Amino acid sequence: MENKYSIILGNLGNTCDRFCKSYKTNPSSERMLELAAENMPYIGGVELVGTWDIRPDNAKEMKKRLDGYGLECASIIPDTFGDSDYGKGSVSSTDPAVRRKALDYLRSMCEVALQVDCRIVNLWMAQDGYDYLLTADYDREREWMTEAIRALASEFPSLKIALEYKPKEPRNFSYHARMADTILAAQETGCRNVGVTIDTGHGFVGGENVAESIVLAKRAGDRLFHMHFNDNHGCWDDDMIVSSVHMTTYIEMMFWLRKTGYDGWLSMDQYPYREDAIGAISESLHWIKKYETIVDERYDEIERLIGLNDAVETSRFLRSLLK
Amino acid sequence: MENKYSIILGNLGNTCDRFCKSYKTNPSSERMLELAAENMPYIGGVELVGTWDIRPDNAKEMKKRLDGYGLECASIIPDTFGDSDYGKGSVSSTDPAVRRKALDYLRSMCEVALQVDCRIVNLWMAQDGYDYLLTADYDREREWMTEAIRALASEFPSLKIALEYKPKEPRNFSYHARMADTILAAQETGCRNVGVTIDTGHGFVGGENVAESIVLAKRAGDRLFHMHFNDNHGCWDDDMIVSSVHMTTYIEMMFWLRKTGYDGWLSMDQYPYREDAIGAISESLHWIKKYETIVDERYDEIERLIGLNDAVETSRFLRSLLK
Amino acid sequence: MENKYSIILGNLGNTCDRFCKSYKTNPSSERMLELAAENMPYIGGVELVGTWDIRPDNAKEMKKRLDGYGLECASIIPDTFGDSDYGKGSVSSTDPAVRRKALDYLRSMCEVALQVDCRIVNLWMAQDGYDYLLTADYDREREWMTEAIRALASEFPSLKIALEYKPKEPRNFSYHARMADTILAAQETGCRNVGVTIDTGHGFVGGENVAESIVLAKRAGDRLFHMHFNDNHGCWDDDMIVSSVHMTTYIEMMFWLRKTGYDGWLSMDQYPYREDAIGAISESLHWIKKYETIVDERYDEIERLIGLNDAVETSRFLRSLLK
Amino acid sequence: MENKYSIILGNLGNTCDRFCKSYKTNPSSERMLELAAENMPYIGGVELVGTWDIRPDNAKEMKKRLDGYGLECASIIPDTFGDSDYGKGSVSSTDPAVRRKALDYLRSMCEVALQVDCRIVNLWMAQDGYDYLLTADYDREREWMTEAIRALASEFPSLKIALEYKPKEPRNFSYHARMADTILAAQETGCRNVGVTIDTGHGFVGGENVAESIVLAKRAGDRLFHMHFNDNHGCWDDDMIVSSVHMTTYIEMMFWLRKTGYDGWLSMDQYPYREDAIGAISESLHWIKKYETIVDERYDEIERLIGLNDAVETSRFLRSLLK
Repeated sequence: MENKYSIILGNLGNTCDRFCKSYKTNPSSERMLELAAENMPYIGGVELVGTWDIRPDNAKEMKKRLDGYGLECASIIPDTFGDSDYGKGSVSSTDPAVRRKALDYLRSMCEVALQVDCRIVNLWMAQDGYDYLLTADYDREREWMTEAIRALASEFPSLKIALEYKPKEPRNFSYHARMADTILAAQETGCRNVGVTIDTGHGFVGGENVAESIVLAKRAGDRLFHMHFNDNHGCWDDDMIVSSVHMTTYIEMMFWLRKTGYDGWLSMDQYPYREDAIGAISESLHWIKKYETIVDERYDEIERLIGLNDAVETSRFLRSLLK
Repeated sequence: MENKYSIILGNLGNTCDRFCKSYKTNPSSERMLELAAENMPYIGGVELVGTWDIRPDNAKEMKKRLDGYGLECASIIPDTFGDSDYGKGSVSSTDPAVRRKALDYLRSMCEVALQVDCRIVNLWMAQDGYDYLLTADYDREREWMTEAIRALASEFPSLKIALEYKPKEPRNFSYHARMADTILAAQETGCRNVGVTIDTGHGFVGGENVAESIVLAKRAGDRLFHMHFNDNHGCWDDDMIVSSVHMTTYIEMMFWLRKTGYDGWLSMDQYPYREDAIGAISESLHWIKKYETIVDERYDEIERLIGLNDAVETSRFLRSLLK
Repeated sequence: MENKYSIILGNLGNTCDRFCKSYKTNPSSERMLELAAENMPYIGGVELVGTWDIRPDNAKEMKKRLDGYGLECASIIPDTFGDSDYGKGSVSSTDPAVRRKALDYLRSMCEVALQVDCRIVNLWMAQDGYDYLLTADYDREREWMTEAIRALASEFPSLKIALEYKPKEPRNFSYHARMADTILAAQETGCRNVGVTIDTGHGFVGGENVAESIVLAKRAGDRLFHMHFNDNHGCWDDDMIVSSVHMTTYIEMMFWLRKTGYDGWLSMDQYPYREDAIGAISESLHWIKKYETIVDERYDEIERLIGLNDAVETSRFLRSLLK
Repeated sequence: MENKYSIILGNLGNTCDRFCKSYKTNPSSERMLELAAENMPYIGGVELVGTWDIRPDNAKEMKKRLDGYGLECASIIPDTFGDSDYGKGSVSSTDPAVRRKALDYLRSMCEVALQVDCRIVNLWMAQDGYDYLLTADYDREREWMTEAIRALASEFPSLKIALEYKPKEPRNFSYHARMADTILAAQETGCRNVGVTIDTGHGFVGGENVAESIVLAKRAGDRLFHMHFNDNHGCWDDDMIVSSVHMTTYIEMMFWLRKTGYDGWLSMDQYPYREDAIGAISESLHWIKKYETIVDERYDEIERLIGLNDAVETSRFLRSLLK
């Protein structure tokens, strides 16, 4: 089985934070696509952000370009995070008009996905959550989210709806916060085509061991639909080059992805605020590829180690990976 | 509806940490029971730790004493954490003999629970987890846990098996780590009498908003069976007096316990290493009672606030609670 | 001794994050000043962000307006965070041209401070730090920072240069990260008019007990020059309304500010992304004022408690503050 | 310059936590010394815990044994953490009798150090701190600590007094918490022979980049006296095998130790609760030795990288270390 690599297209463009509006110039989506096709190793697809990169009005055009480069649309990520109308929630807003607008927007993005032969709609419901204690009815708002996602999944049964979790940012608490609660959210819909996206950095911030999260998703009925890779210093979503901080955890992830039969995309998701984007994202691809090779070549040895329960043996194995 | 208060009996005794074996003398369980009965406000029950406080050989005697003081056995907490045989896991150990021993021990504790008319067996599976990456087969070990808990719950259908979660300590990663994964673990057993215990401090360490966890348990089919209260500074299980650090979160919890119809115990769980234990635990009881009163008297106002989604209004309400 | 209250003017305006460019409309500085003067309780001053609110070209005009409202300029906060030229550091940049530009800009802001009778220049050196391990020469970059701050402090001996620390964001590691390292940075300059600004939320994120940080600054030779107040959930700079999460810590801070003889401003610094800004910032002012009153009225009692070392007594005191 | 390796002797013995009193049998100090001498690679010394391993009554005997094995006493670590008399502080206790007892004990340990030709007395003042807000007079207690450490350093001018910092555990807040505040504490004594011990895991828990802490100590006048190595998952002092979680940070530390001219011990400090202690500690020694070799062989390349400020180039370098 060959892993499929991709990147999020917009990571090649501008990045900002709440203090500095622009660290870089922002090429057009078309130019970023050209840059990706010409420079990125291993990739067979790109992820497109809804509205920014792809909309009903340019879907056909983008599909043609993608085909021209021999790239698939790995996923579409609807933008429910950048529109201030969704500032206090999209499908979980207390305002029914906002909920309707959000659901209609998500529907249109599913239509676009079908048009470009994309199988994954990656829902990062970034504004659905809350900031202050004693200001939200968690039960009612979760119910609204469940209803909206169920509606979407039922109306588009050929798509996989992948819920991307993150503990916080931009809200202080997100409703889809970690693997297990997002599995529960997926199960509540009653739809088999609702699953989960792991962003490795979101998992680290959430205090998860991501390899174990992969196992949780497997046990909950093959709910892992998509993977975003990056690294961070452990307490915040720094969106850094893979393996700039951690090593072992990526090897363990790649092992469990193989062992659980994951056949989705391995996609890079970074914010290279101050770095050369092409270089930084290429590095992540090289790291993951290296770890894939290690796991493929030493699969049986790793399998023995996880059954052995001996940290000393595991340490010896890890040391053997260095020159 | 009247809330039922209790304490963990052993919190009145010795405490140690990994550097200092003893900060205090340790009274006998009988003496601690006397101290609790004579000094603790509001309580109608005590939680007993298996082996330490209660065993097959003293169950009848303890029941008689409890009756004499007019106290119930609120829960039994089997000791799978202090026996070094379980150091690398109890029911999830890779050693089948350890798994069998652990399950037999848990069965005996369920028998004891029946003998003392206790309805809750609180399973804090503290040693079931792992420390190092690439040293455990998460899938297989979780399966063993599920099988053992299913066996127990099936054999003792009149008991409630309450799984107490905690992200880490004593293992670096616990299998029952947070509310949502513990709900998944409970659901995997297929038994309705398997649910969850919230320890407020464990929730804080896990990055949870505990009030939201109460809602998650409700939505997953009324799975909240038991409550342990304490406070901490946010990053570790400091097991402090309630409300020594936080305020708002307890009010929100008490509101949602009421709103979701929770009818279990409100039990205090602290480690007063260097404090007068009776004083410290009494303080927690007084704080929770105060918050209960606030919620009862201003329930409609709070309900309005959580529907309002306005942090300024919520702040005004909170200020109104101070003299 | 009367405490002096102020707010950061720009907190009344737009807020953004790295996903959503605008949650609100942004009034002009002049309009925000009018809003502050007409709506904010207790305040005697405002803090102005350099370039955004105040520049050489409008300093006189702003001073006139401030006088008209009877408000002081509590501090000037030069903007070294929003200009992408400083993206990889301002006075610690490896590029000498950037270092020069930054120092010249800071000089111009000191001139402006003198023009508007402002005594505090608040240096939040947000871009001076690093993101990745093995990419920065900490020794050399710190030396450049020290030289620049020393130059500034020497050239403007009548101003107080207050270094505002924060562990991370926008860089993954800031050079001025916590109280103690910022005291060291101040001491390195050899200038008595270099000190520290506490932002309470930055302290929480840094794992500090802010009251203890106040004592550290006192012991290091009265180095606490300025205070920014807000609250957060403990792991990130959420910039929330004071006391929405914590209570005790603010009482302890207000006590130690009094005890150490702090006579600077108590300024509010929030990001009310989704809240009514006037309401949210007013709430913080009301909370701090309430805590000031508690400390004034019960100063001796609190002094006794901190000498007593008895958490049970302290808990009783805290409970007595609630109705 | 050759690095000197050592281990903490007691790490070969029993470990416990607050739930399980004993995971292992505990060999005698003499037996552990034999085990270390026969099994540990690279070591030229051992660290001895006061009272447990070495006392006035066995100092001569231990010295003879050490000589027999060709090992030095790398440091003595007085036990101010395991005696419940110091539960609420040793030299910072509010009880003058406790302060006197603690200081006398520390003096006796300095005498012992002289007797065994040990140059480092490693003061981990684990009980000097506080748990609850509003229960301690930080100013007075810090002053007592400063006076005691000053007395000790003045009376034993040929010894290096190395203050080992740790943010928390066993107290919720330690007075010696991070590098910078411990430098301030050292400076307050006015003694050049008071410096700092870095425990890498304590630094990680404190949110520090340890390499930067090495630079801080250098800039504060060569205050880094001693190094303890271990790894953890980032939020707690898990005391694990070096490099089981992180990689880059150790390379960066080894580089800066070299660059700043550190000539002290590289000592391993772990709690192998459930692991074979000899195996686990040997692994750490092998990892550090490997990193030392990498740094020695590629020193100029790393020096170029830290001046370059280019995360992509640094990532390429890191990848080149893997086979």
